[in-house]
Amino acid sequence: MTTSHTVAVDAMGGDYAPRAVVDGALLAAERDGVRTLLVGDQEAIHSADPALGSHPLISVRHASEVVAMGAEPASSVRRMKDSSIVRAAEAVRDGDAIALLSAGNTGAALAASLLRIGRIKGVSRPAIAVPFPVLGSTPCSLIDCGANPDATPEMLIQFAQLGAVYTRSRYGVGRPRVGVLTIGEEAGKGNALVKAAIGLFEEPAWAEACGAEFVGNLEGGDLMAGKADVLVVDGFTGNVVLKSLEGAMAIALDAIRAALVSTPEAAATASFLDPILDPLYRTLDPNLIGAAMLCGTKGVSVISHGSSNADTIANAIRTTSEMAESTIVDDFRAVFSG
Amino acid sequence: MTTSHTVAVDAMGGDYAPRAVVDGALLAAERDGVRTLLVGDQEAIHSADPALGSHPLISVRHASEVVAMGAEPASSVRRMKDSSIVRAAEAVRDGDAIALLSAGNTGAALAASLLRIGRIKGVSRPAIAVPFPVLGSTPCSLIDCGANPDATPEMLIQFAQLGAVYTRSRYGVGRPRVGVLTIGEEAGKGNALVKAAIGLFEEPAWAEACGAEFVGNLEGGDLMAGKADVLVVDGFTGNVVLKSLEGAMAIALDAIRAALVSTPEAAATASFLDPILDPLYRTLDPNLIGAAMLCGTKGVSVISHGSSNADTIANAIRTTSEMAESTIVDDFRAVFSG
Repeated sequence: MTTSHTVAVDAMGGDYAPRAVVDGALLAAERDGVRTLLVGDQEAIHSADPALGSHPLISVRHASEVVAMGAEPASSVRRMKDSSIVRAAEAVRDGDAIALLSAGNTGAALAASLLRIGRIKGVSRPAIAVPFPVLGSTPCSLIDCGANPDATPEMLIQFAQLGAVYTRSRYGVGRPRVGVLTIGEEAGKGNALVKAAIGLFEEPAWAEACGAEFVGNLEGGDLMAGKADVLVVDGFTGNVVLKSLEGAMAIALDAIRAALVSTPEAAATASFLDPILDPLYRTLDPNLIGAAMLCGTKGVSVISHGSSNADTIANAIRTTSEMAESTIVDDFRAVFSG
Repeated sequence: MTTSHTVAVDAMGGDYAPRAVVDGALLAAERDGVRTLLVGDQEAIHSADPALGSHPLISVRHASEVVAMGAEPASSVRRMKDSSIVRAAEAVRDGDAIALLSAGNTGAALAASLLRIGRIKGVSRPAIAVPFPVLGSTPCSLIDCGANPDATPEMLIQFAQLGAVYTRSRYGVGRPRVGVLTIGEEAGKGNALVKAAIGLFEEPAWAEACGAEFVGNLEGGDLMAGKADVLVVDGFTGNVVLKSLEGAMAIALDAIRAALVSTPEAAATASFLDPILDPLYRTLDPNLIGAAMLCGTKGVSVISHGSSNADTIANAIRTTSEMAESTIVDDFRAVFSG
């Protein structure tokens, strides 16, 4: 078994772990031929799905501890050296896997990635990129979605560069349009952070270094409107926007689904409308994006929803594998360590 | 004509002004019997709709200047003393109207309200409250949605109190549940602002003073989920969330509407599904909420969307009138100036 295509997965991470993770790994193996290293309680993993057996594409590595969903991330990662997330990150550090995937405690996944996989030289703060759907186009990536709740102007510039490299590598956007997410499109609008950053953003050097085009200040309404390929924001606002949109869209789509079967007459048409609406639901529902990437570490590290089911995990494993097989980490290095 | 029920409306504010504003005022007069004072270019107002004539419920006050949508708010309001927004705010200050409505430059409406109507004693920073739909329940009000892009912990406490009074007055929620919008529900999570504020929020005095119940830290996904009646956030994040949700929901609902008429078979059912889906669209679409209230000034000041059409303006006039006829300003005074 070669290790070059192996994704290390925290088998204990997520609301339905280890069962959903094991089933997701099986699905990814069958559907996409992706190799995984499942890290966690050996017994729990094997008993989660008898079909796992001695699968040719799936291996298991024992870890005795689990960082709980609500636990304080940094101290847990420092203390629980035999936790599944720490051991999974070490598998990437040691070359036994090329990428890390976790659906567990996000802060713990971040901390384990930073401490065990490490930052790329020149990247002061890795940041989380999340793609938002743009109908009829490639997604718009919002960065940072939570790794750095308190950002500085200099950090925003790095987020912009990380986001540009990410969106080029993942979506093939040659010269990504990068905007700053703020309130009001005029140059003088925003909070103190954005006002302090705008001068830095208007210097051409950062954009030239990563092959991006700066498109200025944009507003929340532009996120899914196709005006930019990357939107830069502090990690607090980014995470609140991400969670708000996921929540609102799930509520709206559920309500529409329910309304369409709320009367016998409507229900009669529902099965007929499904083929029309389902692709749209899948495109629009941010919950189905499924995978956020930590940009700026020496290996690919991807975070999936805590509520991930087997299908979401399988999609996230495929995405993680694709990112790991791309040149993205080298591309980050070329911009930041060159 | 009594002035007690008159709403002063900036007739020149909004993308379709003065036409949409004049038509909205006519609609509000006919449908709800609300008196309005339209402030702006006299000639433009009268030529916008010949039906205006000498309407018994609508009067017109001339103002020669207009603060443009993209203009810098504070300096424009200081400089353009005969602008429609300044004159409309002065009508409230002088007792010729009981409330102000503007669909124009939001910053200018804020500045005119602060400078001409003035803050309630004890309120350091008035804040914008926007209700978000909660299916099957009263809305959850997000405060601040943009008046104060850089907040302090003490300001967040005042936003909480303003929001509690607002939601009680507008929606009859006796003991509003107030949460802090942050990232991660644990007490230690958030950005520096939220971490500094949490100690203040845990003191019982502020909540007792306004009859609220503190429900702790909440996440973006809780905004439309019915976990709180008021969510407190800095004005930068609040505005970005508001605009992001408005934009995303409009895109999603438009796409679903379009899909439902995308084939002849679907179109045949669309007219049949309209009665089921339309009320849901109207409930879910944050664009249709139409009116954000500036809480903490000596008179009611309401801000409507720049894109407001006549129907949205009419709804906003009714809301403004209802808020002005409620005890909300006295209720703010009782909490802050008592």
